[in-house]
Amino acid sequence: MTDGHDCYFCAPLAADSFEVVVRGDLVVAVLDRHPINPGHLLVLPLRHATDLAALDTREVTELALVAQRADRALRQVLGAAVEGTNLVMSNGSVADQGVPHAHLHVIPRASGDGYEFREDTSRYPVAPLDPADRAAIAAHMRDG
Amino acid sequence: MTDGHDCYFCAPLAADSFEVVVRGDLVVAVLDRHPINPGHLLVLPLRHATDLAALDTREVTELALVAQRADRALRQVLGAAVEGTNLVMSNGSVADQGVPHAHLHVIPRASGDGYEFREDTSRYPVAPLDPADRAAIAAHMRDG
Repeated sequence: MTDGHDCYFCAPLAADSFEVVVRGDLVVAVLDRHPINPGHLLVLPLRHATDLAALDTREVTELALVAQRADRALRQVLGAAVEGTNLVMSNGSVADQGVPHAHLHVIPRASGDGYEFREDTSRYPVAPLDPADRAAIAAHMRDG
Repeated sequence: MTDGHDCYFCAPLAADSFEVVVRGDLVVAVLDRHPINPGHLLVLPLRHATDLAALDTREVTELALVAQRADRALRQVLGAAVEGTNLVMSNGSVADQGVPHAHLHVIPRASGDGYEFREDTSRYPVAPLDPADRAAIAAHMRDG
């Protein structure tokens, strides 16, 4: 299950050194080692796969369902400490993916926790999507 | 399908005024009206549901699979303009959810696009998760 042993996630999966919360058939939920708030989890495939595009449909499905269960469990157990949550998945280093093994962050949020999505609004509005590209994207999504 | 007509997303769904890319059984992918880059999509349930926790398992599954198809289609069609992608879902105003109708951003990323995840590292390390809470979260996730 854990090929790619140079991988920063495959190695602790193989060595069982993650703080695992729940292990599913295809994915596992572990505590993030650098949490933004207590309970910050990562959901990742057991199989080495680089990013979202490399996952198969069963992995994507389990990843999302485990993330939802995590969201609900965090709220249930931590109560008022969880005022909201973010799901964040970064695919590619330009998107801030630090480890090239697909992973989805489930981040409990609290007022004043200092986590922010920043945009460079001086770039706006960006060029609209070309209508031909939009049609091609729609066709790929329907066929995909 | 689109109850909650005061909702900023239900209203354009009902009026068919979104720029829809793909419509599924339970979710729809539309162009974000304020894109970070061309091709920035939102995937949202057709049914009014506030956030991730309020979605049923079929909606979560379709949301994730449509997001994966979007990721692949954006890369296929827009080519080198898509150097990476982010999936972002905000649940709750503290988490930067602007519209209280669940939605998942699929954001094509490019070098220098100015989109950033900022953390207040002066808060680190945060308190570790209490082991009893971790066990309770695991139990809720397994039962959930």
